[in-house]
Amino acid sequence: MTLYESYARDLAEAIAAGLFRPGDRLPSIREACRQRGVSPATVFKAYYLLEADGLIRAAPRSGYYVNPRPADRRLPEPKPSRPRAPGISVDTQDLIYDIHASLKQRSGVPLGSPFIDPTLFPLERLRQSLVAAMRRLDPWRTVEDLPPGNRTLKRQVLKRYLVHGTKLDESEIVLTHGALPALHLCLAAVTKPGDAVVIESPTFYVALQALQRRGLKAIEVATDCREGIDLGRLAQVLEKRRPAACWLMTNFQNPLGSLMPDRKKRDLVALLTRHDVPLIEDDVYGELYRGDTAPRSAKSFDRRGLVMHCASFSKTLAPGYRVGWTAAGRFAEQVERLKLMTLLTGAIPTQAAVAAYLQDGGYDPHLRRLRRSLADQQAAVVGAVQRHFPEGTRVSLPQGGYFIWLEFEKQVDAVDLFWAATAQGVSIAPGPMFSARDEFRHCIRLNTGQVWSRKVEDAIVRIGRLVARQMPRSSPSPH
Amino acid sequence: MTLYESYARDLAEAIAAGLFRPGDRLPSIREACRQRGVSPATVFKAYYLLEADGLIRAAPRSGYYVNPRPADRRLPEPKPSRPRAPGISVDTQDLIYDIHASLKQRSGVPLGSPFIDPTLFPLERLRQSLVAAMRRLDPWRTVEDLPPGNRTLKRQVLKRYLVHGTKLDESEIVLTHGALPALHLCLAAVTKPGDAVVIESPTFYVALQALQRRGLKAIEVATDCREGIDLGRLAQVLEKRRPAACWLMTNFQNPLGSLMPDRKKRDLVALLTRHDVPLIEDDVYGELYRGDTAPRSAKSFDRRGLVMHCASFSKTLAPGYRVGWTAAGRFAEQVERLKLMTLLTGAIPTQAAVAAYLQDGGYDPHLRRLRRSLADQQAAVVGAVQRHFPEGTRVSLPQGGYFIWLEFEKQVDAVDLFWAATAQGVSIAPGPMFSARDEFRHCIRLNTGQVWSRKVEDAIVRIGRLVARQMPRSSPSPH
Repeated sequence: MTLYESYARDLAEAIAAGLFRPGDRLPSIREACRQRGVSPATVFKAYYLLEADGLIRAAPRSGYYVNPRPADRRLPEPKPSRPRAPGISVDTQDLIYDIHASLKQRSGVPLGSPFIDPTLFPLERLRQSLVAAMRRLDPWRTVEDLPPGNRTLKRQVLKRYLVHGTKLDESEIVLTHGALPALHLCLAAVTKPGDAVVIESPTFYVALQALQRRGLKAIEVATDCREGIDLGRLAQVLEKRRPAACWLMTNFQNPLGSLMPDRKKRDLVALLTRHDVPLIEDDVYGELYRGDTAPRSAKSFDRRGLVMHCASFSKTLAPGYRVGWTAAGRFAEQVERLKLMTLLTGAIPTQAAVAAYLQDGGYDPHLRRLRRSLADQQAAVVGAVQRHFPEGTRVSLPQGGYFIWLEFEKQVDAVDLFWAATAQGVSIAPGPMFSARDEFRHCIRLNTGQVWSRKVEDAIVRIGRLVARQMPRSSPSPH
Repeated sequence: MTLYESYARDLAEAIAAGLFRPGDRLPSIREACRQRGVSPATVFKAYYLLEADGLIRAAPRSGYYVNPRPADRRLPEPKPSRPRAPGISVDTQDLIYDIHASLKQRSGVPLGSPFIDPTLFPLERLRQSLVAAMRRLDPWRTVEDLPPGNRTLKRQVLKRYLVHGTKLDESEIVLTHGALPALHLCLAAVTKPGDAVVIESPTFYVALQALQRRGLKAIEVATDCREGIDLGRLAQVLEKRRPAACWLMTNFQNPLGSLMPDRKKRDLVALLTRHDVPLIEDDVYGELYRGDTAPRSAKSFDRRGLVMHCASFSKTLAPGYRVGWTAAGRFAEQVERLKLMTLLTGAIPTQAAVAAYLQDGGYDPHLRRLRRSLADQQAAVVGAVQRHFPEGTRVSLPQGGYFIWLEFEKQVDAVDLFWAATAQGVSIAPGPMFSARDEFRHCIRLNTGQVWSRKVEDAIVRIGRLVARQMPRSSPSPH
């Protein structure tokens, strides 16, 4: 038996013994070399063998993951969306607000929440940074930094881009009060009322609301829960409809969890560049990848200043601090001007606090811990869904972020499900929230960002039962 | 000689000796009673005598002020505006941004600035409140208060309304990231693109920009530098044009400094109620009155939830903290929803800091000091303008806030003046910034919020000379 065969056999045994569980990431090539004292080639060959056996799978730029066992894998992935009409006015329902209000019940299990478990944020450490920053901060800065905002933070943000291999100019960064205003400002910079904008299907409800508020038409394009928007269909839309902009989430899309592979991002940017259509890239989950390597942003492929990359610290560090930004390419000046007229600037003290936290070097270790927690929690939630949801359920298996997308048979009504679950103290995010035309009524988004506990498992069991009640066994499974 | 005659004579002598200077406020009736040991009736009679002699004047609900001496009073007030067309699309010029950028030069004299002198803010004290608040704050609040924001702050804001005699329900208050987003959200709550909105003429440039961004038409209504918008003309507009909303500054309007008398506010609300047209009341300067009695808000007369009252702590306490709100009447829920989709919430730590500062009782003493400083500074600036600006200049004499409005003869070009002043290290705010149709080219706004110094006086002398150069003595004076 060769070195790599023996390594592969040991790993297979470890998987069988449950030491590595479905969804777990295997050690990186480098880690494995160090642990086992073998060459990278040996590790590669061992992993290749396991992959060929169906025990593990490679996720591009992310690592190797343990596959669900055959018994676990019975639930397939959701099908790609097929939006119907080529462009419509947006009229979001009150439903979004009713649901959002109900998600704030502290007592329940917030599987419909847009945020991770607050215990996963380094809130105490951040508070110390704020106090320290305020001690150091020249009080005049709280007056004189209006706008453009705290310059130390700007430089720290630029540094993070550099770490990810993207060199930007300081003038491109517009600091905002979280990513939400950045997205709105970018949309305002490149559209006028009546224009059409490409969005994913399903899409983050804030995009729908932003389009509605500005009087824009939505062109929903088919989106797959693995690799994101369908570039072929996007190309057709660009030819025929001349949209004013695209608004996409390239990394761990909300709600699907899809990750556009880096080469696809490159193609996307090339396609948009040919048509000179700006991209609003909502990338608030990009730091929450699995494995060792961060996915790139579409922005990193942009040579024409056509991509407005929007991100924040709200999903990873502290939502309540409201610190975000956009790297807005050639639209940066216009975005900064719009900001001046609508927001003036972000809150200087919290910007200074985040800048201090970043300077002190706490962010990367925190992110590493957070990524591990989220990977474990997702594996646990997906495992529970596999065990407790009825045949006919489909579930996405994202490579990052903290949402999974579930698709049921057509007779399931996700809004009914939402109210029934709420009555049992569990929230979910029903599919129609994510559609301009009340689609995805048989889909839900679940938050996998809550720390795993018996309470969370019980909540999943309850939702599974509620789904089963709406989806009787007699109905034929679609696969 | 009676008691009141003797008191009047003493005051007249004090004025003649320069102990009270033009623009100074005389002691309030109460203060005078205490100081002099006389009855209110005696003080009233003494003030009445002085008023009859033209030495002082009464400002409604504000107190008694020393009149300019005959030699000083040579410059009259600006004429009320007479906007031409009944409603136009807004297309603000790049000028606004160029000018705003240039106002940030720390080295120059910022007479064009929208802010007061930073030394007038209690920045150090506020920083202590922030540090103390962060020590006390449950870190979870930075997650769980999204939205609606910090509840202690909400209650403190409600308390301030109560102090001013206005009882509101907590559900009416929407906390925002400064007053700017509040104004935008209110506008979005009650208009749709294509609607017409009533604004003052001249008006704050942010209103112009907000209308432009939302695709609204502006109906400019004649506005007087003493008492604000012309209600007769407004009534005509309401009859004929059915605007979707009015956006007005009732207290110390920017740029005119006009103060709508309280009875006029009552009439305004009655008029708008008859037509069921919502009022967006921008009241960020209301706390900066002269004298003892705060002017009321239009909101305080509102019984139908038709007034959306927007205010902040940015003009009085700390611009960089970005803490503001709207009391949005029957539109509050809609505004809160729009906020959820665009801002989520204000920064929780700075909200907590301001709440702690208010709780500690520091705000009212600070406001009293600030009002006195602003009154003194305005008297000094107006005096210098009277001395150093040429015949043909008109200047407003506001009863609060920190702007004065200057009108020159038609041949003066305020934009040329702006660039010439900038070259000399002095900024001014040229009139066309405040117009949807490039009007007020012969007007400027001066900031009287800078601490009085030789440097400020020199700056006013320079501007006066630049104006004189454009307005040769040979030209006939219009009055």
